[in-house]
Amino acid sequence: MALDNLHHVVVVGGGFGGLQLVKDLKGLPVRITLIDRRNHHLFQPLLYQVATTLLATSEIAWPIRRLFRDRPEVTTLLAEVDGVNAAAKTLTLSGGDDISYDTLVLATGATHAYFGRDEWAPFAPGLKTLEDATTIRRRMLLAFEQAEREIDPAVRDALLTFTIVGAGPTGVELAGIIAELAHVTLPREFRNIDTRKTRIMLVEAGSRVLAGFAEELSAYAHKALERLGVEIHLGERVTDCSAAGVMIGEAFIGSRTIVWAAGVEASPAAVWLGVPADRAGRVIVGKDLSTPGLPEVFVIGDTASVLQEDGKPVPGIAPAAKQQGSYVAKIIKARLMQKPVPPSFRYRHQGSLATIGRRSAIIDFGRFKLTGALAWWIWGIAHIYFLIGTRSRFAVAWSWLWIYLSGQHTARLITQRETVVPPSSNDSGT
Amino acid sequence: MALDNLHHVVVVGGGFGGLQLVKDLKGLPVRITLIDRRNHHLFQPLLYQVATTLLATSEIAWPIRRLFRDRPEVTTLLAEVDGVNAAAKTLTLSGGDDISYDTLVLATGATHAYFGRDEWAPFAPGLKTLEDATTIRRRMLLAFEQAEREIDPAVRDALLTFTIVGAGPTGVELAGIIAELAHVTLPREFRNIDTRKTRIMLVEAGSRVLAGFAEELSAYAHKALERLGVEIHLGERVTDCSAAGVMIGEAFIGSRTIVWAAGVEASPAAVWLGVPADRAGRVIVGKDLSTPGLPEVFVIGDTASVLQEDGKPVPGIAPAAKQQGSYVAKIIKARLMQKPVPPSFRYRHQGSLATIGRRSAIIDFGRFKLTGALAWWIWGIAHIYFLIGTRSRFAVAWSWLWIYLSGQHTARLITQRETVVPPSSNDSGT
Repeated sequence: MALDNLHHVVVVGGGFGGLQLVKDLKGLPVRITLIDRRNHHLFQPLLYQVATTLLATSEIAWPIRRLFRDRPEVTTLLAEVDGVNAAAKTLTLSGGDDISYDTLVLATGATHAYFGRDEWAPFAPGLKTLEDATTIRRRMLLAFEQAEREIDPAVRDALLTFTIVGAGPTGVELAGIIAELAHVTLPREFRNIDTRKTRIMLVEAGSRVLAGFAEELSAYAHKALERLGVEIHLGERVTDCSAAGVMIGEAFIGSRTIVWAAGVEASPAAVWLGVPADRAGRVIVGKDLSTPGLPEVFVIGDTASVLQEDGKPVPGIAPAAKQQGSYVAKIIKARLMQKPVPPSFRYRHQGSLATIGRRSAIIDFGRFKLTGALAWWIWGIAHIYFLIGTRSRFAVAWSWLWIYLSGQHTARLITQRETVVPPSSNDSGT
Repeated sequence: MALDNLHHVVVVGGGFGGLQLVKDLKGLPVRITLIDRRNHHLFQPLLYQVATTLLATSEIAWPIRRLFRDRPEVTTLLAEVDGVNAAAKTLTLSGGDDISYDTLVLATGATHAYFGRDEWAPFAPGLKTLEDATTIRRRMLLAFEQAEREIDPAVRDALLTFTIVGAGPTGVELAGIIAELAHVTLPREFRNIDTRKTRIMLVEAGSRVLAGFAEELSAYAHKALERLGVEIHLGERVTDCSAAGVMIGEAFIGSRTIVWAAGVEASPAAVWLGVPADRAGRVIVGKDLSTPGLPEVFVIGDTASVLQEDGKPVPGIAPAAKQQGSYVAKIIKARLMQKPVPPSFRYRHQGSLATIGRRSAIIDFGRFKLTGALAWWIWGIAHIYFLIGTRSRFAVAWSWLWIYLSGQHTARLITQRETVVPPSSNDSGT
């Protein structure tokens, strides 16, 4: 069969949604081009563990083209998309190549946003890519190293003050691990500073941590974080970030390491398509996840604005993106087979999980809720299950077991020196 | 006991020599300051496996301060040394701090050298740091990715031509793994190119590969490399390097990926001390490894020029550096105890090992020589033994076993984008 004559599905983005879609298209008479600007799929739910030295980069990332090596109809391209010409049904790659499609699926995800204060980016990196994670890891470890050499007590205090902006799952998970690193793992290794005096501030504009969870779980997480030594600031806003520290409301606090876990902004799919977007830049798609007026263009995952039946937005989490990928695969199949198209996308929430430190977690399955060590074990087993491949599952299980038994973090490397200009999230090292 | 009154040993460099010295000083009435510009000790003999996607960065690197967390008399500093004032017995750290010493040991290693052609550095990275390894990994993987998208056949050929300059152990090990990656691991993953046609050129000015080994082992390695598809150029010199390719003698060959495994240059210890150095910049030390005229300053490892009894230089390998570290620790101990100082340093060669690809190696123990799969197993077990700590040993053993059984490399990540100016070995990513 000549591949060139087949229906051509172009998928942009090798995240959870894009991969699920390509998997579910298996066996259909289509040829598929999967485009990503990275060569790897990233297991973002564990990215905070790379940032905090628990896991190595290669334990949570896989070369995309390897995943589809047994699917000759799938071509993987490492490329950036510059724009879409919906009328001509083509998209343009940076470098100038045009690719034509019969069906286009945009699954390009989101990045962190600074609510219009992009000038904060160099001082407060977010956590979306492997480079982001190693930037945060490097800055955090360098802060302790510099503090060990520092004579000025005010500078030393600023070096030993870590600010995390935003108390969603990422912020909470970062704060918990950093607190354990400073208060449990590191103290014996330094001679001139007492890392147990490290200040970890978690700043949240809302009224509670983990606002997406039930209130009693938020309360549990709040107490667990305080027990780990995290200083929680609720109902307060960061009003400025600089190399020296943060302004929280009107008060300046010296803090050399700031991590941004607050805002999210969709990738520019809406701009490429010239269609309406919500405030966060997400494409407002139809009930079948297609773009208004462009039935052959679908948008899924964090780039799409989709409502649940109760009017709440579908959350920007991996299971939601996977379900959308599967749903669009079904539509493509139905159209090719000229069968009735499945009714509108319905999101099924499977539950929410978050960890606090290395031995505690919260689980919210709606009626079923769980906290503490057992929740941590369930969380760990679930995440190992969701990793790709035997090798990674073994490697992560071994790293966690090792940390659990020894208390020693495995990946405490400072790599790639800080350049003169503070790096943006895109040009810093791993 | 007030630490401040103790004899102060300052060690610069946390490589094999420096670490061994600090270990062997255990129990002595000294305080020790260990200074390195990295936060990690690097197991350099396996660095080529990070560059070729076999191992992850954190599997061969350990935070130095963690290694001495149970030695309160050891202070670890992350700092660069700017110079030594031997008259005042102080050294200056970048940033301006002065540190005084009673005994100083310089174990600052070597870097790669371009024989006066430093302008080749951006095009032909060497392999000394984790950043070097990830730079090479990124360029190599990007070359395949770009070739998959490239239409111009000449450019595609240049992208699929890899040049390794220098056929010592590092060059041979790199060439073997890259050949296996291109010819065995990758073919099924690409749709537009045949990675089996990748050209891997190993260019050596001398008359044979692995000149440090016995001739029959060189011959074995030569044949093994050719079987893997490596094109060996002996007695030829690289006369130019550019972004487009290499000049070998008078012939230009398009080659977008070049790796430098040829020259070595010592760190500037001789310049700091103002003492004579050999051609490669190594300090010409006395028989007790002290600096001429400065009996309290020792230089060990790749920074020192030391001769064996037969007049040959002590090789720049890990066991030699470790032996020197142990020897200097003995001298320091003898001086403190006012006992006779051990006679001059004597190097004991324990053997030479090198791998060719993933299943073959050569071992040269003098009278005992071995090649092939058994040698590979011995090589592997020996290297796992020399790693630090249970965690790394398990992790590396697991990675190797996985690669051995599945043929799949574990760490095929492209991280940290290439910046506009080609990066030097010091500012590229991991």
